Amino acid sequence: MPGNSFGKVFRVTTFGESHGKGIGAVIDGCPSRIPLSEADFINEMAGRRPGRSPVDTPRSEPDSVEILSGVFEGITTGTPIALFIRNQDVRSEPYEILRRLFRPGHADYTYFKKYGHFDFRGGGRSSARETAARVAAGVVAQKVLAPLEIRITAYTLEMGGVRAKRMDLGVIHKNPFYCPDMGVVDRMGEVLSKAREAGDSIGGIVEVRASGCPAGLGEPVFDKLSADLAKGMMSVGAVKGIEIGAGFEAARLKGSRNNDPITPSGFTTNHAGGILGGISNGDDIVIRAAVKPIPSIMMTQETIDREGRPARLALKGRFDSSAVPRIVPVLKAMAAVVLADHYLRWKSIS
Amino acid sequence: MPGNSFGKVFRVTTFGESHGKGIGAVIDGCPSRIPLSEADFINEMAGRRPGRSPVDTPRSEPDSVEILSGVFEGITTGTPIALFIRNQDVRSEPYEILRRLFRPGHADYTYFKKYGHFDFRGGGRSSARETAARVAAGVVAQKVLAPLEIRITAYTLEMGGVRAKRMDLGVIHKNPFYCPDMGVVDRMGEVLSKAREAGDSIGGIVEVRASGCPAGLGEPVFDKLSADLAKGMMSVGAVKGIEIGAGFEAARLKGSRNNDPITPSGFTTNHAGGILGGISNGDDIVIRAAVKPIPSIMMTQETIDREGRPARLALKGRFDSSAVPRIVPVLKAMAAVVLADHYLRWKSIS
Amino acid sequence: MPGNSFGKVFRVTTFGESHGKGIGAVIDGCPSRIPLSEADFINEMAGRRPGRSPVDTPRSEPDSVEILSGVFEGITTGTPIALFIRNQDVRSEPYEILRRLFRPGHADYTYFKKYGHFDFRGGGRSSARETAARVAAGVVAQKVLAPLEIRITAYTLEMGGVRAKRMDLGVIHKNPFYCPDMGVVDRMGEVLSKAREAGDSIGGIVEVRASGCPAGLGEPVFDKLSADLAKGMMSVGAVKGIEIGAGFEAARLKGSRNNDPITPSGFTTNHAGGILGGISNGDDIVIRAAVKPIPSIMMTQETIDREGRPARLALKGRFDSSAVPRIVPVLKAMAAVVLADHYLRWKSIS
Amino acid sequence: MPGNSFGKVFRVTTFGESHGKGIGAVIDGCPSRIPLSEADFINEMAGRRPGRSPVDTPRSEPDSVEILSGVFEGITTGTPIALFIRNQDVRSEPYEILRRLFRPGHADYTYFKKYGHFDFRGGGRSSARETAARVAAGVVAQKVLAPLEIRITAYTLEMGGVRAKRMDLGVIHKNPFYCPDMGVVDRMGEVLSKAREAGDSIGGIVEVRASGCPAGLGEPVFDKLSADLAKGMMSVGAVKGIEIGAGFEAARLKGSRNNDPITPSGFTTNHAGGILGGISNGDDIVIRAAVKPIPSIMMTQETIDREGRPARLALKGRFDSSAVPRIVPVLKAMAAVVLADHYLRWKSIS
Repeated sequence: MPGNSFGKVFRVTTFGESHGKGIGAVIDGCPSRIPLSEADFINEMAGRRPGRSPVDTPRSEPDSVEILSGVFEGITTGTPIALFIRNQDVRSEPYEILRRLFRPGHADYTYFKKYGHFDFRGGGRSSARETAARVAAGVVAQKVLAPLEIRITAYTLEMGGVRAKRMDLGVIHKNPFYCPDMGVVDRMGEVLSKAREAGDSIGGIVEVRASGCPAGLGEPVFDKLSADLAKGMMSVGAVKGIEIGAGFEAARLKGSRNNDPITPSGFTTNHAGGILGGISNGDDIVIRAAVKPIPSIMMTQETIDREGRPARLALKGRFDSSAVPRIVPVLKAMAAVVLADHYLRWKSIS
Repeated sequence: MPGNSFGKVFRVTTFGESHGKGIGAVIDGCPSRIPLSEADFINEMAGRRPGRSPVDTPRSEPDSVEILSGVFEGITTGTPIALFIRNQDVRSEPYEILRRLFRPGHADYTYFKKYGHFDFRGGGRSSARETAARVAAGVVAQKVLAPLEIRITAYTLEMGGVRAKRMDLGVIHKNPFYCPDMGVVDRMGEVLSKAREAGDSIGGIVEVRASGCPAGLGEPVFDKLSADLAKGMMSVGAVKGIEIGAGFEAARLKGSRNNDPITPSGFTTNHAGGILGGISNGDDIVIRAAVKPIPSIMMTQETIDREGRPARLALKGRFDSSAVPRIVPVLKAMAAVVLADHYLRWKSIS
Repeated sequence: MPGNSFGKVFRVTTFGESHGKGIGAVIDGCPSRIPLSEADFINEMAGRRPGRSPVDTPRSEPDSVEILSGVFEGITTGTPIALFIRNQDVRSEPYEILRRLFRPGHADYTYFKKYGHFDFRGGGRSSARETAARVAAGVVAQKVLAPLEIRITAYTLEMGGVRAKRMDLGVIHKNPFYCPDMGVVDRMGEVLSKAREAGDSIGGIVEVRASGCPAGLGEPVFDKLSADLAKGMMSVGAVKGIEIGAGFEAARLKGSRNNDPITPSGFTTNHAGGILGGISNGDDIVIRAAVKPIPSIMMTQETIDREGRPARLALKGRFDSSAVPRIVPVLKAMAAVVLADHYLRWKSIS
Repeated sequence: MPGNSFGKVFRVTTFGESHGKGIGAVIDGCPSRIPLSEADFINEMAGRRPGRSPVDTPRSEPDSVEILSGVFEGITTGTPIALFIRNQDVRSEPYEILRRLFRPGHADYTYFKKYGHFDFRGGGRSSARETAARVAAGVVAQKVLAPLEIRITAYTLEMGGVRAKRMDLGVIHKNPFYCPDMGVVDRMGEVLSKAREAGDSIGGIVEVRASGCPAGLGEPVFDKLSADLAKGMMSVGAVKGIEIGAGFEAARLKGSRNNDPITPSGFTTNHAGGILGGISNGDDIVIRAAVKPIPSIMMTQETIDREGRPARLALKGRFDSSAVPRIVPVLKAMAAVVLADHYLRWKSIS
């Protein structure tokens, strides 16, 4: 049974492969009369494009989003919005070796086991390129959320073991890592460069914060806001952990400390991460994702071929050394999609 | 829009409140011809019942599961299986104060904001009692998984800051905390007793492991096995964080170390937690959940009443001091439900 | 994959068998703060109960609806509403022969083929008794629709070939057949009695009319209001045909005649049956269902046994001679469920 | 809440407007390893193209289907298959009047009421052009059904009141109306020409027959095969009635006549239309759809403008005089989509 749709009322279905014709999304359930143009996508799409940092993969596509349907005279019509991002710079040759060998840490092995046949070029459907469609959908989601005046911010809390000590959200667009602490940016860059020189890669931790969300979003007991955020984030390739609010730290706190006192002017702490019983409580929604190091490395690795015979693989080509800066707008987009969906779900019963 | 169903092919819908008539589940999509009787539920239901440890809440219901439909002559018929667990020991009086005051860390505030009207007795729908239906559904899920010979185990990795150092799954049913390390059980008990004496509570970390799962389960790009496991776990009250495999530790590893080498006899490490690209890879599936300290504490807390006026609340009554031992079978059940659903989803395209 | 849920925002899941413990429904997505009590179900449940006409099946259960969850202090809470109707008068003996032989026109054969094992007593899950849950859900749906002031009426247009010539909706509760034409009621009764005496059965045509529905309900291109009404009606056992507005007659009209002229005060005709392009247009929604003669007849019929060997079957026991009067409240309920669902769906984007 | 997806396991989401960039479909859930190329669509797409009969609309686009994703090296990969049919011949000018006036019998009025803003050109999303995506999806569905050797045929049973008297399925591709009776083809053509000359339009009845379908498809009690077929057919614009098997005629038959006797070699009659209790019984599945006369007529009609003021409208431009021949492949496609979906659903529990 298929799994390429996300959301129930604001429903995003994505399609496309890394080295096929392109990547796309169909958004069904977007309300009508929202202004939307192809220009609206430029900024966010640029945010996930490689080439932001000097150590990024050289593949650099414009990633312009074409609106195929659902918009008339610059305004949404309530019908499905199809978005398409054509692949432009698709050299398949470097990937011929993947016809035979599985890359450790990649989905090659599992796609082969599941489907028997898959587009191995650049990871095909399992490529990070798939996230372009998520970012595009996130742009529309943010437009849907406009009446709520929710502000979603995403930033790098930690990369390669270097952690931000200050939280200055004003600077996250002033450095290539979306880091809220300018004081650690150079150190992050050094760690990244060093990994790249070694043909290795690093991971990190990304935090997403949604301010201004009203109390009441989330549908217990299974479609809790926290549960859908966790699913949305965990569905992004490379994410291996999720925390809401205090997260794993909460496991070590006493109840008397973890409970957020309630006052007439709001909660005095936010260990809950803005969600109680799966429903937003009006405080900032705070969610963190652990991003694993990118599995594509230049170092020689042990693997097997399609026939199960042992082999050694040393990838050559153009690879990021970390998913972290590029995944930041993707996680922001997923948060926007989840919130837009729950906003519209909430309207149905209000 | 409603959120009380989970799964797509093996679909569980739950209902019921803590102090209403009872808790139930309707399982739609269970294949026919599976032997099932009310006795099959006894063990797992007992596992989540309070009273396992000497410091547990004194409320102790038999929690017998009644099969209302879907089974004929001891065998499932393929029609919906309705399960009902009648509430027996429901004293509402201690909860009258909740008609006025919101308990910090609880869903009272958000349910009131969302629904305007809610059954506040014992938490109503947001009570941990809701998980009884999940455990019952998990029993059926495990029967569905029987042909795959998957073995699911859940245990307490850490409680109140005390962490298991050994992993002996053979002992988890030999101590009241489902701890795989008998050497730390006493220490866990002390920390729990101390918290209880102080009128406080503690949290912990639970790990779930599924062995024997074949490669191929999971539906990218959104309904990845990891994403659905994360959602299922995060939908359980008190869970604030999720890790698959190396989890947050992966964020600090180099790619060369985090990648699991592939050999003809399998993966040599399991940082992936048995899931690559959202699809099971044949290795053990490993997932951890951070459980917050139970918010019901006896200590006086700052809160507000329904009119927003400041108030102080000191709960009296019967409360667990930790959700941890009781949540173990619940998380096991959710893993079983997710795997059963994905097993049946996988069959539809195989 | 399961099929026992209907609706997306107002979602009804039913369970139960004719001769099991009972029949039930879980309604997920009902807004909070709607007054609801067990007494609210009495009238509609009585409407589908056998025994209305002198020729009905003698099995006559009170069919009282028990609310298991989702209502607190007489008001819905927004959590799932579980309804249960206990089977009381369940004599299984007359059905022992069905363990061996398939009844022509019944689902015995297909349930056996699909599930391999089924509760054959009284049709089990495929019994008309299943519709009790639909009627109960319809009562809640009508409460959800209250703000729209939609009035849904259902009546027998034709039975056993006898067709109503007048449309006096004021009399449909003054005769046992819900017929809007008192002038044909006696003739209907005669045809029914005659069929019963012969051990045979008759069918008919039921019309459902929803007045006061605002323009705008329905979600093209697949979840059109007409499409969901058609599905809802066709999912009721015994229904073999559906018409909206002019229906099959429209196939023979010219466009110039079938088009409903639009004037400042509304449409001058209603061939569309209140739905254009799958969206309600503000006029009365009119839908008709063809109801086949009940397949349970006393006459000897040709059939086969489970091993495929030829056999002859003459049913004995208590059977209706027509589904028609009893199906009228069921079809009304389904219309209410579809409209309630689309009303809430419409709210999510409005 | 959105309604542009159909099917649960074989899931089709369509998008696009009549005079936008194009029409498309995303098929999620198609199994991997099915050969598929753009050439596979040519025949079926040609079948719904205008221009088959001399009286058809002159707009005649090639309607070539572009595969945007999901196919690699000529074989499906199990990932979403995106199909796109670019609009080529889109003159918007004739539609400028629709910016002001609602066409009787069209969705203009209801789209305006529902969405406030819509692409009025050629009907936009509510145009018959939308069905191109359904036909394309139907081609893939038929490939999915290949292992079952189901043969689906669709034909015109009646048009403009002229009814086929013979059922020779061998001739349906030898006349422009897909009529199984060559003896009435000329008469059909005359009626159609006459309507066209008068600036009027006619409707008809289309029958779809699926042979070779095994017993067991269909998911009671709501997702019965009959219910999903009814929904799929009724979701096609212009369809106002649906019959399964004997349909409305069954309402007038006695049970003794309507019941299909069962013999060791099968059913001796097929009043059930191949479906019992919502599950296929192995016999031919037979479904009929009533198609209303096309609402676009040249004759002057009474209507209103967007401000509700009375107006008169006489359309000019290129219109079919009947939807009937062109809708035949669309209904065939919908039957294929429903059967493919239920085939895959059935596999999940078998």
